[in-house]
This record gives sequence, structure tokens and C-alpha cells, in this order.
Amino acid sequence: MLKPEILDPQGQAVSGALPRLGFEQFREVRQGKRFVLTVDGEVTEEHLAAAAEAAEKLLSNPVIEDVVSVRAQQDVDSVRAEDPDQ
Amino acid sequence: MLKPEILDPQGQAVSGALPRLGFEQFREVRQGKRFVLTVDGEVTEEHLAAAAEAAEKLLSNPVIEDVVSVRAQQDVDSVRAEDPDQ
Repeated sequence: MLKPEILDPQGQAVSGALPRLGFEQFREVRQGKRFVLTVDGEVTEEHLAAAAEAAEKLLSNPVIEDVVSVRAQQDVDSVRAEDPDQ
Repeated sequence: MLKPEILDPQGQAVSGALPRLGFEQFREVRQGKRFVLTVDGEVTEEHLAAAAEAAEKLLSNPVIEDVVSVRAQQDVDSVRAEDPDQ
């Protein structure tokens, strides 16, 4: 997600549109990215550590973005290291 | 997230770059969006239902995207209905 002090025009646009469309209950909207990284087999601690490192160094821009969550997610057909990032 | 059958060029670009940067363990990368919707006070079931409806109808394009998760998240300074979406 964008750091709190960074302006988020996309989120602001959504935030402005929601009340016009009947959603009055949300005070603020911020938009970010998520990445799903798929691995073969079980998600190990090493996979999660590598995903966290990739998220910090490559998938996000650390000047303006924070990595907010890196977690494993079991999938129906495969096991994924998930990276709801930035 | 983009539906599995929809091509994800951004994710493919990341997927191609990771091995060159030392991350060999990820078979596939897909990129999507997340939204953080902030509410005043506690996140209620009504907030989550509204967030899920907004995610399905307004924040995602149901032709090409799936809403994969809508969940409440407690924050240090506020309570948020989080919408790691699309």
C-alpha cells in the first residue's frame, strides 16, 4: 500500500464515487497492489522469507509504498505464497 | 484478482524478472488490486456486507476480475474494513 503520507488519487476517486453510488459508510479508501506468488508443493518458511524479501526489494517501491502483509494461502489446486503487497 | 483464464502481462513481467534477480522458487506471479476502506468505529457485519457489495459491483470488473477476499482489519489508530480485492 502507499504510505499514509503519500497522496492516493485513485483511492480518492473511489472514495468520492462510493457515496454517489449508495455507499455512505466509508470514510476513506486507499488503493494498493497485491501479488500472488505460486510455488510447487508446500509453502515453507523459506518461501515466505523469499516472498517478503521480493516484496520489499522488487515488488514495491520502498520510497512511497509499504509491504503490509505476506502470508501463505492454501489453494484448491495448488499451494501459494501470497503477497498482498504494497 | 484477474480471473485465472485472463492473461496477466504485469504478473508475467514480474514472473520473468524474479529469477534474474535471484528468486527462482516462484512458478507463477499474478498481480491484482487491494482496497482499504476505512470506517468510523468498529467494523460491523453491515460494513463487511457493504464492502463486499462495493467490491463486486464497483471496485472490480466482474467480466475479468474476481473478488478474492473481504475482511476486517484492526488498525493501530482506527478500525478498517479491508478489501484486498480483485
